[in-house]
Amino acid sequence: MANIRKNRSRKSGLPPGTLVHIGEQKIDVPKITLIQYDEQDFLETEDLSLEQCAGKAGGFGGISWINIDGIHDIALMEKAGELFGVHSLTLEDILNTEQRPKAEAYEHYLFFSLKMLSLNGNGSNLLSEQVSLFLGERLVITFQERPGDVFDPLRERIRQGKGRLRKSKADYLAYSLLDALVDSYFGILERLGEEMEDLEELVLRYPAKQTVTRIHNLKRRILVLRRAVWPLRELVSSFEKSESPLLEHSTRLFLRDVYDHTVQIIDGVEVSREIISGLMDLYLSSLSNRTNEVMKVLTIVATIFIPLTFIAGVYGMNFKYMPELAWKWGYPAIWLVMVAAALGMLWYFRRKKWL
Amino acid sequence: MANIRKNRSRKSGLPPGTLVHIGEQKIDVPKITLIQYDEQDFLETEDLSLEQCAGKAGGFGGISWINIDGIHDIALMEKAGELFGVHSLTLEDILNTEQRPKAEAYEHYLFFSLKMLSLNGNGSNLLSEQVSLFLGERLVITFQERPGDVFDPLRERIRQGKGRLRKSKADYLAYSLLDALVDSYFGILERLGEEMEDLEELVLRYPAKQTVTRIHNLKRRILVLRRAVWPLRELVSSFEKSESPLLEHSTRLFLRDVYDHTVQIIDGVEVSREIISGLMDLYLSSLSNRTNEVMKVLTIVATIFIPLTFIAGVYGMNFKYMPELAWKWGYPAIWLVMVAAALGMLWYFRRKKWL
Amino acid sequence: MANIRKNRSRKSGLPPGTLVHIGEQKIDVPKITLIQYDEQDFLETEDLSLEQCAGKAGGFGGISWINIDGIHDIALMEKAGELFGVHSLTLEDILNTEQRPKAEAYEHYLFFSLKMLSLNGNGSNLLSEQVSLFLGERLVITFQERPGDVFDPLRERIRQGKGRLRKSKADYLAYSLLDALVDSYFGILERLGEEMEDLEELVLRYPAKQTVTRIHNLKRRILVLRRAVWPLRELVSSFEKSESPLLEHSTRLFLRDVYDHTVQIIDGVEVSREIISGLMDLYLSSLSNRTNEVMKVLTIVATIFIPLTFIAGVYGMNFKYMPELAWKWGYPAIWLVMVAAALGMLWYFRRKKWL
Amino acid sequence: MANIRKNRSRKSGLPPGTLVHIGEQKIDVPKITLIQYDEQDFLETEDLSLEQCAGKAGGFGGISWINIDGIHDIALMEKAGELFGVHSLTLEDILNTEQRPKAEAYEHYLFFSLKMLSLNGNGSNLLSEQVSLFLGERLVITFQERPGDVFDPLRERIRQGKGRLRKSKADYLAYSLLDALVDSYFGILERLGEEMEDLEELVLRYPAKQTVTRIHNLKRRILVLRRAVWPLRELVSSFEKSESPLLEHSTRLFLRDVYDHTVQIIDGVEVSREIISGLMDLYLSSLSNRTNEVMKVLTIVATIFIPLTFIAGVYGMNFKYMPELAWKWGYPAIWLVMVAAALGMLWYFRRKKWL
Amino acid sequence: MANIRKNRSRKSGLPPGTLVHIGEQKIDVPKITLIQYDEQDFLETEDLSLEQCAGKAGGFGGISWINIDGIHDIALMEKAGELFGVHSLTLEDILNTEQRPKAEAYEHYLFFSLKMLSLNGNGSNLLSEQVSLFLGERLVITFQERPGDVFDPLRERIRQGKGRLRKSKADYLAYSLLDALVDSYFGILERLGEEMEDLEELVLRYPAKQTVTRIHNLKRRILVLRRAVWPLRELVSSFEKSESPLLEHSTRLFLRDVYDHTVQIIDGVEVSREIISGLMDLYLSSLSNRTNEVMKVLTIVATIFIPLTFIAGVYGMNFKYMPELAWKWGYPAIWLVMVAAALGMLWYFRRKKWL
Repeated sequence: MANIRKNRSRKSGLPPGTLVHIGEQKIDVPKITLIQYDEQDFLETEDLSLEQCAGKAGGFGGISWINIDGIHDIALMEKAGELFGVHSLTLEDILNTEQRPKAEAYEHYLFFSLKMLSLNGNGSNLLSEQVSLFLGERLVITFQERPGDVFDPLRERIRQGKGRLRKSKADYLAYSLLDALVDSYFGILERLGEEMEDLEELVLRYPAKQTVTRIHNLKRRILVLRRAVWPLRELVSSFEKSESPLLEHSTRLFLRDVYDHTVQIIDGVEVSREIISGLMDLYLSSLSNRTNEVMKVLTIVATIFIPLTFIAGVYGMNFKYMPELAWKWGYPAIWLVMVAAALGMLWYFRRKKWL
Repeated sequence: MANIRKNRSRKSGLPPGTLVHIGEQKIDVPKITLIQYDEQDFLETEDLSLEQCAGKAGGFGGISWINIDGIHDIALMEKAGELFGVHSLTLEDILNTEQRPKAEAYEHYLFFSLKMLSLNGNGSNLLSEQVSLFLGERLVITFQERPGDVFDPLRERIRQGKGRLRKSKADYLAYSLLDALVDSYFGILERLGEEMEDLEELVLRYPAKQTVTRIHNLKRRILVLRRAVWPLRELVSSFEKSESPLLEHSTRLFLRDVYDHTVQIIDGVEVSREIISGLMDLYLSSLSNRTNEVMKVLTIVATIFIPLTFIAGVYGMNFKYMPELAWKWGYPAIWLVMVAAALGMLWYFRRKKWL
Repeated sequence: MANIRKNRSRKSGLPPGTLVHIGEQKIDVPKITLIQYDEQDFLETEDLSLEQCAGKAGGFGGISWINIDGIHDIALMEKAGELFGVHSLTLEDILNTEQRPKAEAYEHYLFFSLKMLSLNGNGSNLLSEQVSLFLGERLVITFQERPGDVFDPLRERIRQGKGRLRKSKADYLAYSLLDALVDSYFGILERLGEEMEDLEELVLRYPAKQTVTRIHNLKRRILVLRRAVWPLRELVSSFEKSESPLLEHSTRLFLRDVYDHTVQIIDGVEVSREIISGLMDLYLSSLSNRTNEVMKVLTIVATIFIPLTFIAGVYGMNFKYMPELAWKWGYPAIWLVMVAAALGMLWYFRRKKWL
Repeated sequence: MANIRKNRSRKSGLPPGTLVHIGEQKIDVPKITLIQYDEQDFLETEDLSLEQCAGKAGGFGGISWINIDGIHDIALMEKAGELFGVHSLTLEDILNTEQRPKAEAYEHYLFFSLKMLSLNGNGSNLLSEQVSLFLGERLVITFQERPGDVFDPLRERIRQGKGRLRKSKADYLAYSLLDALVDSYFGILERLGEEMEDLEELVLRYPAKQTVTRIHNLKRRILVLRRAVWPLRELVSSFEKSESPLLEHSTRLFLRDVYDHTVQIIDGVEVSREIISGLMDLYLSSLSNRTNEVMKVLTIVATIFIPLTFIAGVYGMNFKYMPELAWKWGYPAIWLVMVAAALGMLWYFRRKKWL
Repeated sequence: MANIRKNRSRKSGLPPGTLVHIGEQKIDVPKITLIQYDEQDFLETEDLSLEQCAGKAGGFGGISWINIDGIHDIALMEKAGELFGVHSLTLEDILNTEQRPKAEAYEHYLFFSLKMLSLNGNGSNLLSEQVSLFLGERLVITFQERPGDVFDPLRERIRQGKGRLRKSKADYLAYSLLDALVDSYFGILERLGEEMEDLEELVLRYPAKQTVTRIHNLKRRILVLRRAVWPLRELVSSFEKSESPLLEHSTRLFLRDVYDHTVQIIDGVEVSREIISGLMDLYLSSLSNRTNEVMKVLTIVATIFIPLTFIAGVYGMNFKYMPELAWKWGYPAIWLVMVAAALGMLWYFRRKKWL
């Protein structure tokens, strides 16, 4: 699959509400999954069409959760808009994968747009996937860019019917999804924290050029995380305080909890930023230290041997009348002078604490 | 055309409301274009006089959009003020191209002043043009410094009559213009972002003097972008919350969308600033690294050869009584000593990880 | 005991309110202590079961303070939840030792989560232990991670029955616990301040590589302290302003005092951060100074002797026709030239203030 | 005139409201000018006594503007206080030339204190003069430290009777004075901006020691400008929102304009500060670059010639048994070796991109 | 007197309201002075006991000002609490000399805690003394750590009976004390400002190691000043807005003035901080400049003489077949070559602007 990234700027000049997919297409054919449950029943269906989903959801008294992996299919999105009454601006937000996390309350539904973050294999890259969440009455729709998400434990809980989930309304499902996403940030923050500690040791032990590249890369990933997390605080807070009838009182209490987690992550991110910038300073000081050390070695060797070489040079001159050359003890004497000069130098360096 | 830039300071001491063009004159003769449309009809006229425009706009039941390219003609501006009832302070704002983006509500109209940004050919310069927007009842007037703008796709949409635009009131046209301008910033942010990535690689690979100049230049352009974008947030927000009867409820929803885009751009700009300042640190550390490397080469060569030269110097002395000189194996022995000293040094440098 | 640290990320995907202990298990078997008192009586019991505690607390007209050391036992926590009516989200907060300090008001109780900080033996590490505080009517429960706390003087005051404590309600006990914790931060701030002063002297006297490591370590500890203290301000303030009937008016006055202490500690932490970042600059300048000094020694020695060596080299050449070599006073003359050159150099360096 | 600067600290311990002139006396004898005008008449009188001014102002139905150059004469100030009903705290503010710009509303008058800034001849110094403005009914009094101000164009406008000024009330005159002052800041910002651009080029081309002094000096001037401008925002805003009956509605609209200009200047100042701090970084990097270059030259020359000198030294030894010395092609061979070594070094440096 | 400094941490675990003196004891026996005055009478008594003071103050219709120098005597403090109705928390604040400046309104009195700052002899240390102020009806009590304060001019004013002071209520005395304290900060700011200017010159002329120590020390003193001044703004503002009946309307106007002074000092402190951090940059760049200069001298001398020494070395070799040695003009020719090489080098350095 070629790089089919579409930049935000492609939208310039198009009428607002025009549906354009912004970002990279990450899956070939969108995949739709429907989970339906109430306190007694549970039903999971795959590979339905959107119309089938809408029909099934409409004819069911419990909660329906439609998950759509792959959002690049404009026609599909337009159909979703029609079937579930989604405003065109909401659809535009779903398609724009560079959207800032945000929450918006419409008359008949609440809408959230968030980032699902994951580190690649060796942790050197922080992948960001947009997850949009539509919360209607008895209906939750999630839009993802590609298959694979952090919601599997949640699905398992629905299947097994343990806990509050099966007994609660759709808002509790929405909350659980939000909670799962926010919880997943903790894992990322922890891995970045571990890498930071590794780098800290490296910087102090041996400041190589790659170290600085890694510090810079880590800083970038923390900036990505930060950009995903900061708007969350406002988002969760506005969700919690929303007067929408879709939201039960008990769920608000749980949202307060998510809010606390968000603040905790933001705290962690900010501390990480501060430590990272300290690491850069540490690296520079470490480097200066090394340069200083190299300089000292050069200076010690050069200041000891350059004068000695000069003395040797003097007695290598070919003047006819150089009385010292004929002295019997001239040669040993000059050795004595040279050794004394060298020792003097060494004593001086020791006093200067260079040795 | 000579440089006829007029600075802001030229205005000092003039009575407020005195019309003085501040900035560079970018076109010889102002050009006026009139677009008129309603749901059925569409009319585009060029090269009219302002009086003609005013007459046509007054006698038409739909929306009229007058675009004026070139704002240096004071007489024309005064005429516009009379014909359309524009306050002298508004005219002053239109003429002052160093005006900060702002919105102001007057009794009969709303006024916006924004920056239209564009990168020059090779992207090394960010050009800023002031666009002023007057929104009256059934009338929108845009003032630009020179021909050429980001509104062509919008004109095309009016011509083709697709979408909401032809069915909506003048406030929707004003919103669409605002939206087009804000969308154009995304393109600029993307190009600057690409340049930033190039620079990042350059800095890590080979930190040349030009690199630092380019970083500085990029920083300046980001500051220009920032200065254009920051006031936008407040501007859009005050527009959205304005109680002017000129503003329909449905348009407010769209303005919320523009607001989100503005915040997204501001976010991007702030992240860019942070990365840029990180680049500068990276550059400095890269430079220190190179100095350190140069130092090491010098130190290695000098510390190996200076002592050897000293030894050679000793046996170049002309003392009469130097027993070693007469030894049969003196010369090979001295070579042995010298090779051993050199190897010892090399071993020391390897242990210090300088090699 | 092996390292059984459990990270926050382990919780991802679990239903909210699921009790999972996050952090390191620091004690084998939880230890429960009950202190009961009113103006006349005082009773201290150890090693009870939770049920016994609940029974005793229920049947007593005075204040009961239950202290639990060790929170990793989920079953125990759940029992506590049942017996004292603690909400599952509160239990989750108690178990999550990476929780940000916070206060929450429930219908029948107030809940606080704080950090108890202590420096290890040589002060190089700042240990953080979570202390959770449940304030009900006539009942205070404290949850700690391990035995040993800063509350011993408080216990002594209860035992001796001096002061207000025995005459006041449970809210005053809660306040006293809070006050003891906040007061303990002063001691830590003072020890860090002393270390900072030591480092300051070290940096100015002799900037070694370990110094920078110590500065970095100190900075980290201050960041830990800061993270524990900042949320406290809001916490105490919300406690003070809480409308809970559990809180007497007179206690609010005392809380105002705790609030002032919190602000004082925050002030101290911020000043410390500023001084620390100044220390880093000082270290770098100190290092540059040393490099400069090393350079000067090298330059002085090299610039004096390299030209002299050259002169000696010239008269070591073996040309047949070198008239100077045959001069009677050639050798002393060349010495004169060399001494003059060396003195000239020295004079130049003195003028440059290098000597 | 000797330096008779009086510091703020001289006031310590004096009762509040004690009139003490703080600052440098900049004129020998205060000079009083009276301008009186209404729509028809215009009268300009110089060298009056304050009593005469008060009499003339009282007996005139139009606007009177009294300008006093020189504020060090305490007796005069006290008389002004009596004649025009100025509160002693206001007089104290007028006399204290180190006063922060501020606005205050008293029952019968409004009071402003501002800074009039001017660059000296070569622009290397930013002079600050305090201008105080008293706005009563039909009366404006301005207090300046010395003759010469930015109000001459305004005086000309009054004389010529063009524009709104002659038709408006005293509040419009006060606004015009404020506007003239704020406009004068633009000129200063522009000159500083030009100097900044010069410095930018200098830094990139040749980083001399004077450059850094100039950067530092520029920074100081920008700090002075900033200190004068920041409080202005609040000042103008409070003026605009003041409920004083002295203020007409139409003037408020114009004040809004001044407010915009103030914000624009603050924006400019903040951008300048950011660029200045970037310049300092640029300077340091430029300096590091130069050091790196000097190091390279030294390293190249030294690493090429030191080994060659060693080789020459070896064959300058006087051992009896040195077979090479007797070889016929020994000398040319050794030249070959030396040239090869030098070329090898050069190739190595080229590969390292040092050449 | 031995160092009997008592740290804040000593209080940990003591019941709140326990009176413990925190800080250094600075006087042996507390000294109590009573000044009583009304419009007609004035009475100054020294060395009274507290009971006598209370009696005298109670039986006098005018204003009584009790000044206590020395606050380490707990018994005395407790007696003061009883006699004048001071809350135990207020007493605790008086005794805690590390208290942050604060104001608190109790039912029957207002309480302030401030810092009196003074520079020691050579200005290298900023001493901080806590001054607490109790304002009751017709009674002001000041608590100081040691004799000597900035209130002498105020006492003189009371004695002489000039100005408002003798005619006003106790709140005006409290205001005057506050004003005197705030005014004394100006003197300190000025002395620090002068030192800053000295340092600025030093840094640019000759960056020695002591300079950086002095910059650091100056920074510390500014941080102390800042810590004393920042809370003052809030303090004065809350005093001014306090609804206490102890406060006359006219005094509020004067407090507004103190507020302005406070803001002015804060401004000055912030500008100083910025300039100080600029000084550090300046120092570092100055140092880099010097290193660069040292490097240049070394490089010039070494690159000129090392090649020449090599040439001399070549003709010092003892090969049998070296035709040049036998040439008649060999020696002068080689001199020519060497002079040419040296001149070439010099030309190169000049072109590089190193000379």
